Amino acid sequence: MASNSTGQSLFARTVDPMHQKKNANVPPKRRGFRRCKSAHLVVLDKNSNNERLPRPKSIVRMLHPNFKWVPVYLAVYLALGTICFSLVDKQIKGKKTNAIIDSLYFCIVTMTTVGYGDLVPGSNLSKLLACAYVFSGMALGGLIVSKGVDYLVEKQEILLVKALHMNQKVGPFDILKEIETNKVMYKIFVVSILLLVLFLVGTIVLIFVEEMSFIDAFYCVCCTVTTLGYGDKSFKSKIGRIFAVFWILTSTVCLAQFFLYIAELNSQKRQRALAEWVLTREMTNLDLEAADIDDDGVVNAAEFVIYKLKEMGKINQEDINLVIKEFEELDVDQSGTLSGSDIILAQSSSTKM
Amino acid sequence: MASNSTGQSLFARTVDPMHQKKNANVPPKRRGFRRCKSAHLVVLDKNSNNERLPRPKSIVRMLHPNFKWVPVYLAVYLALGTICFSLVDKQIKGKKTNAIIDSLYFCIVTMTTVGYGDLVPGSNLSKLLACAYVFSGMALGGLIVSKGVDYLVEKQEILLVKALHMNQKVGPFDILKEIETNKVMYKIFVVSILLLVLFLVGTIVLIFVEEMSFIDAFYCVCCTVTTLGYGDKSFKSKIGRIFAVFWILTSTVCLAQFFLYIAELNSQKRQRALAEWVLTREMTNLDLEAADIDDDGVVNAAEFVIYKLKEMGKINQEDINLVIKEFEELDVDQSGTLSGSDIILAQSSSTKM
Repeated sequence: MASNSTGQSLFARTVDPMHQKKNANVPPKRRGFRRCKSAHLVVLDKNSNNERLPRPKSIVRMLHPNFKWVPVYLAVYLALGTICFSLVDKQIKGKKTNAIIDSLYFCIVTMTTVGYGDLVPGSNLSKLLACAYVFSGMALGGLIVSKGVDYLVEKQEILLVKALHMNQKVGPFDILKEIETNKVMYKIFVVSILLLVLFLVGTIVLIFVEEMSFIDAFYCVCCTVTTLGYGDKSFKSKIGRIFAVFWILTSTVCLAQFFLYIAELNSQKRQRALAEWVLTREMTNLDLEAADIDDDGVVNAAEFVIYKLKEMGKINQEDINLVIKEFEELDVDQSGTLSGSDIILAQSSSTKM
Repeated sequence: MASNSTGQSLFARTVDPMHQKKNANVPPKRRGFRRCKSAHLVVLDKNSNNERLPRPKSIVRMLHPNFKWVPVYLAVYLALGTICFSLVDKQIKGKKTNAIIDSLYFCIVTMTTVGYGDLVPGSNLSKLLACAYVFSGMALGGLIVSKGVDYLVEKQEILLVKALHMNQKVGPFDILKEIETNKVMYKIFVVSILLLVLFLVGTIVLIFVEEMSFIDAFYCVCCTVTTLGYGDKSFKSKIGRIFAVFWILTSTVCLAQFFLYIAELNSQKRQRALAEWVLTREMTNLDLEAADIDDDGVVNAAEFVIYKLKEMGKINQEDINLVIKEFEELDVDQSGTLSGSDIILAQSSSTKM
């Protein structure tokens, strides 16, 4: 038996004492169902199966989409934009400082859709360039928000949970478990702290570098992170614009990610409530019939799991049909179950073909 | 047997003739697995189970989140904003037309984060008001994009598929099936057409009402739908601003929804490729052991489905554990399977308690 201790610690159920008490009169269970083995972990575990299962590179890319390339895309995109807008520098109207800095600043203000309007394209060519740049920038921005930041935040989570439980003795598996349960909450916490810092830093820089009043600085920060960008208050000095390049990008992305996590939390809450309802509602004979996939008159544990997960909307009939089709092909001896002999038969028939 | 014809037509597998040919030497299947019954449909079907299963209102709300309230939220939000900014009308700087129209236009430009800057708050009070307004507007905008529009687009899909297959005889179930398979593609198609119309209408209105050149009008449309809003070109006339109120809201929401669908399509493609890899990779004895939930030495169809869906990342061990816990409680006679007698025992014990 390929016991997987990582899986066990990661997904071990927390026992609810209230619940146990309620069922105290029920005799101890005869059958033990395994709750610890995760197919995902078996596949991903480096030490166990990698030699047996040569995983094609494309699968690794599927499981871990190309977020590592996001910084490269961003750098290329900004470099191209800066070069283009430097070349049409004379056609851009507004308060200028340095050609390169202004172009980069204009790129950032455009791609994040802040669009202050302190620098605006003044010719047809530069206008069309800006149009193309903002559309591609939005697509890239979506990639950064959904992939790049999420990846970074996930890494911070582990540090955060470690820091929060510094005084208690917790192993790495407990940390992973703790994160698994409250994943989105921790993410929101991490992003909120980052947003608070960015708000503070932005306000302070605007007060001291751009010499704004406190209210104006705060107003400009709000206008920027939300990508509103009226443009009556913006970065006008060289130092301010250099700061703005980094600050605008991080703060707008952070706020977008924050809203994304809030939406995720809401849908998670709704899903959990639905799951609870599905699990607590009374089973009837009609449900039993519907759940009985192999039509043998009884519902086994796995059939019950599928029925309930389907009811929760986590899986659909299409997915199940696909897998069952595959099952029928693998079940060479037509017994309705897969055993070692099926595997051997399947392998020998595939070598024959 | 409560046969569900809706479910059968809806999810009946399309037979791939190529695939059938390849397996021509395989004898016909002994066991037929049911591929037609959907728990979701059983639950949702009005005619079958509703009297037996009194569904609490909260569940209906969980399945159909409160998107029907989105227009009401939007109306209240815009009405409140218009009243507030009308009251501080004197503190708003820029080209004015009519107090009410300008306030509503300012609300729309702010909530969509277009932020032209043709009207800007000129006092501390109005600046703070605008800050509060843009944050709440972003949250509401997210709700509109993720819920409201998706609901509307889904309705259009059915009409679209009907229109595309007008010459062929297709029943409502075929249409639903066709939509199920290419859901996101159809959604992207619907939104793209809508965007194209909005682009055209916006450009034409800007040319004729705001008297812009074609390039300027196109540039202003791009600046607006992306919420960039430099503000060098914007709606300055009364008629233009009345049009802008409706046009800005729909076009910005449409573009955001378009990007959302593109992201959905990408993740769907990745998921399908992963599913294909999971289904076609060779099963080993270790896989069999891992898949065998009830430890009886063989893997039945339902166990195989769970194992593969877990590998595809569609379900996780936590979900399965929750359902198995429920199963063990229902399995009163400890047989490892649920049958009619378990249901009766469970009901009698629950009435005793």
